[in-house]
Amino acid sequence: MSGSRIYMDWNATAPLLPEAREALLFALDQLGNPSSVHGEGRAVRALVESARRDVATLCGAQPAAVVFTSGATEAANLVLTSEFRMGRTPLKAGKLYVSAIEHPAVREGGRFAREDVCEIAVTNAGIVDCAALEDLLRAHDRETGLPMVAVMLANNETGIIQPVAEVAALVRAHGGILVVDAVQAAGRLPLSISSLGADFLILSSHKIGGPKGAGALVARGEIMMPSPLIRGGGQEKGHRSGTENAAALAGFAAAARAAAADIDGRMAAIAALRDGLEAEMQSCAPDVVIHGRDQSRLANTCFFTLPGLKAETGQIAFDLEGVALSAGSACSSGKVGQSHVLTAMGYDPRQGALRISIGEATTQAEIERCAAVFAKVAARRRSAGQAA
Amino acid sequence: MSGSRIYMDWNATAPLLPEAREALLFALDQLGNPSSVHGEGRAVRALVESARRDVATLCGAQPAAVVFTSGATEAANLVLTSEFRMGRTPLKAGKLYVSAIEHPAVREGGRFAREDVCEIAVTNAGIVDCAALEDLLRAHDRETGLPMVAVMLANNETGIIQPVAEVAALVRAHGGILVVDAVQAAGRLPLSISSLGADFLILSSHKIGGPKGAGALVARGEIMMPSPLIRGGGQEKGHRSGTENAAALAGFAAAARAAAADIDGRMAAIAALRDGLEAEMQSCAPDVVIHGRDQSRLANTCFFTLPGLKAETGQIAFDLEGVALSAGSACSSGKVGQSHVLTAMGYDPRQGALRISIGEATTQAEIERCAAVFAKVAARRRSAGQAA
Repeated sequence: MSGSRIYMDWNATAPLLPEAREALLFALDQLGNPSSVHGEGRAVRALVESARRDVATLCGAQPAAVVFTSGATEAANLVLTSEFRMGRTPLKAGKLYVSAIEHPAVREGGRFAREDVCEIAVTNAGIVDCAALEDLLRAHDRETGLPMVAVMLANNETGIIQPVAEVAALVRAHGGILVVDAVQAAGRLPLSISSLGADFLILSSHKIGGPKGAGALVARGEIMMPSPLIRGGGQEKGHRSGTENAAALAGFAAAARAAAADIDGRMAAIAALRDGLEAEMQSCAPDVVIHGRDQSRLANTCFFTLPGLKAETGQIAFDLEGVALSAGSACSSGKVGQSHVLTAMGYDPRQGALRISIGEATTQAEIERCAAVFAKVAARRRSAGQAA
Repeated sequence: MSGSRIYMDWNATAPLLPEAREALLFALDQLGNPSSVHGEGRAVRALVESARRDVATLCGAQPAAVVFTSGATEAANLVLTSEFRMGRTPLKAGKLYVSAIEHPAVREGGRFAREDVCEIAVTNAGIVDCAALEDLLRAHDRETGLPMVAVMLANNETGIIQPVAEVAALVRAHGGILVVDAVQAAGRLPLSISSLGADFLILSSHKIGGPKGAGALVARGEIMMPSPLIRGGGQEKGHRSGTENAAALAGFAAAARAAAADIDGRMAAIAALRDGLEAEMQSCAPDVVIHGRDQSRLANTCFFTLPGLKAETGQIAFDLEGVALSAGSACSSGKVGQSHVLTAMGYDPRQGALRISIGEATTQAEIERCAAVFAKVAARRRSAGQAA
């Protein structure tokens, strides 16, 4: 067995792309505060504005509608608020409806009071239940303000693609605001804020091969905007104060350019690797449950349960064999908790599930080694079962 | 005239230190999400925790009391809230008292309602008026909650050091919470949260030679903490969610180590350069007003008004001559507005002032070239004055 590690946790964070690293380094060596009016400041400002155009292009938005943040979690907290402005007129969102499978950054409800956050059920197939959403929207009390709905485009654990266009039609029919977490979908699915019918998109740099420390809230237009989360010097047109992290934004932009290129070709190659792996897994452990396998899924994600293997144990076993994968989301400070996604899908969450998520740099050799580790772990589970 | 530029705007952003760049690059090339439990994740986690120790050391705090943020503005918005917890018990701050010379990140009042933010006057000498603060604290209605006071340790425009120990004694006598913006003081003055008597310190990475995109809220202990500003995956013990920007934090830590080393020696050298420049300025333009020259000031800052020269005009003139300096704070998205600091000091702000701020990399040759540019600009002003 080779001593090198195999990284299969791209949905937690993707390896930094060489072009993102290069853009980051170039910007890092530019001296100046982008708000300064001298030559140095203006040069850094130009990098930030160029980054804004690239990120806008990734999701078919206007550059002016891109608000840079320190990451997707901050972007979620910026937009998930009851206080909006439509031009100069205050606008209130009364309740927030979030799908039961949203990422914690969205599920926590941002600035909404806990009692104003309602959960939208998902079906056993792991898909947002549009009938349930419609019931919620019908029952929404407009006296409290507009309904705000947050549904992700693709789930981070299962990879299952959500019916955002259908959700958008419902939200529009009920005069609501739609926020779409496109963090996992970006670079893996074509992305157009207007085709999706979303009012806001949330993006993360480090999930698409950019550096950590950058993200964006992208608005459909510039007219309806949330009240700022971070106030101060008035950067980002007052929507987000604080010196812009020009280096991270330049890296984010380079990753966004790569993410927008040849999505079909890249994803076909990745799907072939993932599907090959899944076939191997099933052939050596026919009882493996691959969650969402019958659904429209991201090409890079495989979320599975091996009966008799607890997710924590499995994760450690793979790690010891040199394979980095995860038990659900990485966003709980190292805790391996029960997956709220499995629970929402009506699956017994106690055994948990493991997530393999791959990317452009994943090789066939790595897939084969991962399949071999899987076979070893699955066999050990069987012998442990026989011994018990 | 050499074609190279002279950067004299360190208070807006300091050049990245080589050791900070190196630490950032090392962390950048570590693959993994610090919340992931696999080997890759744990390695990045270790970098984040090591950075926490270095930043704690810079200000004599416990590592556990350091909450990393995306920058000082976010840290200010995190701590400037009426909602605190003392252990599990909710604690309310009723009003926020901010000095009239605070940075906009603090002056905007964070999450306080505008009507709950009161200004503390400063004297004509540019120093927080402790008698005025005492009057405010005496009049504070404790039924609304505790009084919270925010006073910076050193002003970003004038460099004037504020009487934080005296302020702390007043705040303690009135059972209040003291927040100290140490962004400009860090690395230029010895920093100890307990000696200062502060409950919270605000720090910025890029002002001490670290990268942009990192900052910290440092607490005296871990018992009293503000309600989180950014919710989600529960990173930073729930105080600040979002994947940690490990690369920026590693760079921040390297800069913090440098900032803690030999402050007296570094500042003596910088003061000699700055004082030499000021002597040159005064000798060629005896009417130049150097704000705060008689006060305890940061060694690196020179904030001056040349009668008959508008700050905007002066800034452009220096920029065209290859010298980057600023007209007040850089934090207003490129706008050159009137200085609220000058206004607070009772000085006519219409003419404005220019800020030269230097650092460890500034050379005697640069000082001489800057003095020559100053002489040219001052002379042009005189001839324009004679022509008028």
